[in-house]
Amino acid sequence: MAPKISRRTALAGAIGAGTAAIAAPRAAAAAPTVVSADVIVVGGGLAGLSTARRLVAAGKEVLVLEARDRVGGRVKSMVNPVGTTVDLGAEFVGPTQDHILAMAAELGVRTIRTYDTGKNVYHRAGTRRLYDAGGILGPIPPDLGALEAGLAMVMLNDLAKEIPVGRPWEHRDAAELDASTYAEWVNKHSLTDGARFLLGLALSSALSVRPYEVSLLYWLNYVAAAGNETTVGTVQRLASTTGGAQESILEGGAQQIPIRMAAALGARVRLNSPVRSISQTATGVSVVTDTASYQAQRVVVAMSPAMNATIAFTPALPPARLQLSQRLPMGSIGKALTVYPTPFWRGQGLTGQAASDGGPIDITFDGSPTADGHGVLVGFISANEMRRLDNADEAQVKAECLAALVRYFGPQAANPIGFTLQRWDREEWSRGGPVGIAGPGVLSTLGPALREPHGRVHWAGTETADYWTGYMDGALRSGERVAAELLPLLS
Amino acid sequence: MAPKISRRTALAGAIGAGTAAIAAPRAAAAAPTVVSADVIVVGGGLAGLSTARRLVAAGKEVLVLEARDRVGGRVKSMVNPVGTTVDLGAEFVGPTQDHILAMAAELGVRTIRTYDTGKNVYHRAGTRRLYDAGGILGPIPPDLGALEAGLAMVMLNDLAKEIPVGRPWEHRDAAELDASTYAEWVNKHSLTDGARFLLGLALSSALSVRPYEVSLLYWLNYVAAAGNETTVGTVQRLASTTGGAQESILEGGAQQIPIRMAAALGARVRLNSPVRSISQTATGVSVVTDTASYQAQRVVVAMSPAMNATIAFTPALPPARLQLSQRLPMGSIGKALTVYPTPFWRGQGLTGQAASDGGPIDITFDGSPTADGHGVLVGFISANEMRRLDNADEAQVKAECLAALVRYFGPQAANPIGFTLQRWDREEWSRGGPVGIAGPGVLSTLGPALREPHGRVHWAGTETADYWTGYMDGALRSGERVAAELLPLLS
Repeated sequence: MAPKISRRTALAGAIGAGTAAIAAPRAAAAAPTVVSADVIVVGGGLAGLSTARRLVAAGKEVLVLEARDRVGGRVKSMVNPVGTTVDLGAEFVGPTQDHILAMAAELGVRTIRTYDTGKNVYHRAGTRRLYDAGGILGPIPPDLGALEAGLAMVMLNDLAKEIPVGRPWEHRDAAELDASTYAEWVNKHSLTDGARFLLGLALSSALSVRPYEVSLLYWLNYVAAAGNETTVGTVQRLASTTGGAQESILEGGAQQIPIRMAAALGARVRLNSPVRSISQTATGVSVVTDTASYQAQRVVVAMSPAMNATIAFTPALPPARLQLSQRLPMGSIGKALTVYPTPFWRGQGLTGQAASDGGPIDITFDGSPTADGHGVLVGFISANEMRRLDNADEAQVKAECLAALVRYFGPQAANPIGFTLQRWDREEWSRGGPVGIAGPGVLSTLGPALREPHGRVHWAGTETADYWTGYMDGALRSGERVAAELLPLLS
Repeated sequence: MAPKISRRTALAGAIGAGTAAIAAPRAAAAAPTVVSADVIVVGGGLAGLSTARRLVAAGKEVLVLEARDRVGGRVKSMVNPVGTTVDLGAEFVGPTQDHILAMAAELGVRTIRTYDTGKNVYHRAGTRRLYDAGGILGPIPPDLGALEAGLAMVMLNDLAKEIPVGRPWEHRDAAELDASTYAEWVNKHSLTDGARFLLGLALSSALSVRPYEVSLLYWLNYVAAAGNETTVGTVQRLASTTGGAQESILEGGAQQIPIRMAAALGARVRLNSPVRSISQTATGVSVVTDTASYQAQRVVVAMSPAMNATIAFTPALPPARLQLSQRLPMGSIGKALTVYPTPFWRGQGLTGQAASDGGPIDITFDGSPTADGHGVLVGFISANEMRRLDNADEAQVKAECLAALVRYFGPQAANPIGFTLQRWDREEWSRGGPVGIAGPGVLSTLGPALREPHGRVHWAGTETADYWTGYMDGALRSGERVAAELLPLLS
């Protein structure tokens, strides 16, 4: 059943590209149209779209309000000037990510295996070495640091096995595990610089933060979440290509998933509609944007907790939720997508994967599509390096990135035919990425508030997922969970 | 020169008590009146009022927009039902807090020395002991833990001396000091539970967070800031009554300061005016509330960085500022003000000061005014204990608080004539207290953005202060600093 909306708003709901169909400045707004639905979903990323898809399938009237002029949130693809599709945000999928894989299949989006034949590059302390592939943390160069890191990762995986996934605060030692940073644990369990580097890289490749920014409990839960109901999570699955979270890319770009989900929802999705306030009474909820007012039985806020702070809630959010919105900051992250006429590194027996202690790119993957023959190096700019370059001229960032790629893959890397930079720290509606992280003391005391509804306001977003929190899979899972939570409550 | 405002808005600016003079619901708002001033100050706490006071003295037209129905922000006093004035937020002042002391003198608000004659109570592991007074961390009971803590505090003070106050990111070892938590430092420099307890209490009595929540760099800067241009900061000055930050209370309550500052500003202060958006062009800034629109040359945002996230900025804030608004969360804090017919503890030779490892109150002071003869025990509910009780019935909190006071001061504490509970975690416009804190990695990478203007938008608030950041003194200092920053820029 379609929601009761006018023709004008249906047009505004088209998956547009920056044309603000509803753009009357707020100060001049007359009394806005009030639109009703069973559920208003705030946020047109995968979590919100997944929520809406489930509710619509159950016959409910739903509207999705998205602040940006596009759907997808932290999932964003583009066709760059040379015709190659690149992913500027979330990109990879892999085994045990059953929900995103099922959605891709359902929507007819094919997966393409990430190229990982050959050797990886390991560039540290100015020295380049090659090692057998199998993921960034695969069989790393056999030195003392690698051995130490390997042993520490066995211990980490063992600790992660004990975590009640998605409810780490229920671990018997939750308070203790949450009282220290991952950096403390690393320093205690490794003596060599090499091990500390690799153990740090395991974290930053997943979260784009330094090891002292997250609590041990948070990181153990994140590792534990890299699996599903029948498969335990491991650090290796987070970091690997084959067998891991980077096993495949999505044909046409990852944003094909939210775009097709939104297309199926049609006019139920409204772009350019940042929600400013959510007010509830005993009988319903009112949601206000700059230009319209919406009424619903229930509201789902499908965004990172940090972004909740941009919305005025009446009544105010409960204390734990007010704290969560201050205490799950986004990492600092950027991606440099560098396109070459061909994936030249393959001819040198290289996978296109590099791990480095040098900036600005610390991790790379081969993100080449199969069709056009171009080669794409996907480079991540992480944590402090991203902050250093947040405001730099794009030309400077490009020069630094290419210099790094030359160090990893040789002089051919200096001459790309395309270069696209995405700095998530600059995105007003994301404020960093890939996910909200928790420092010490947060999850053990405030975690239960993550999914606890505030009256008629419910929560989705990858941060609220049990498995694959921080990933596209977790985002979909969170939408499915909240839809199931809502259905019995709707009249 | 008074700003150009109408009679109606002048009425709305009165220092009211909950009567929303401007209360038209937003959806029904017609095109709002546009009011102009040289500078709009967002936030009617001490920082904002201090800014306005300086600018008005320099002949500028200023308007202060305050979200609440009162001025003062984290400074809030009330006369409780038995007629005794209590401070629900910031309360104490002491030596080297020159700016708040000068303002009190200028406004005719007298200081009253905090009673601290006699012995303090030290209640740990279920055992109550007494020790000579002089502040919570004064001559603590001479055991191994106290000795260890004392030595560690000497080291802390020495480290703090090296910090460039207000610019800790300029310390030569900033990155290293910012890569660990204070808890790590405590664990490294103490072996006894007693020392760890006392070193933790030194932090939580000032910041209401646990030692693993802040970076060592942040805490060293906070200690260094507990002084002035000629006097170095020390842990002891933070924690002490005589000679320290708790040396005196303000007659009639600390809120007398912002109330009198606001009275002098008159109709320039508008209550019930939460700012929703701030948009700037090359020529000016527009500030929008639910009911009005304001134009100014410059805007000062005078609130904690965490609260910035509630305002929509156009153009969007720069990346470092978007990150700061996610990474300086408020502590979790409450105050229990318990009133007795007389300060009965004085007759037992007690100061009214207690330090305890038991909940919910971990620190107390004698907050008795001199006039009415009643006794007031000021009890702090800190960090995890506050979170545990954020949503508890007030009757339960009261029962737990009185049980704690009985443990510290004997059975007479069970029968107060007044009890006032203030839970700052529940305050929508503060979201915790007393101040925004920084975990590892924040100040060393993002600190320079704290005071860096965003075009025509400038920043105040105690978090931006050099000396006495986190205190009323720092709030006033920040307003004075930003006013000096603005004056050369105004036409």
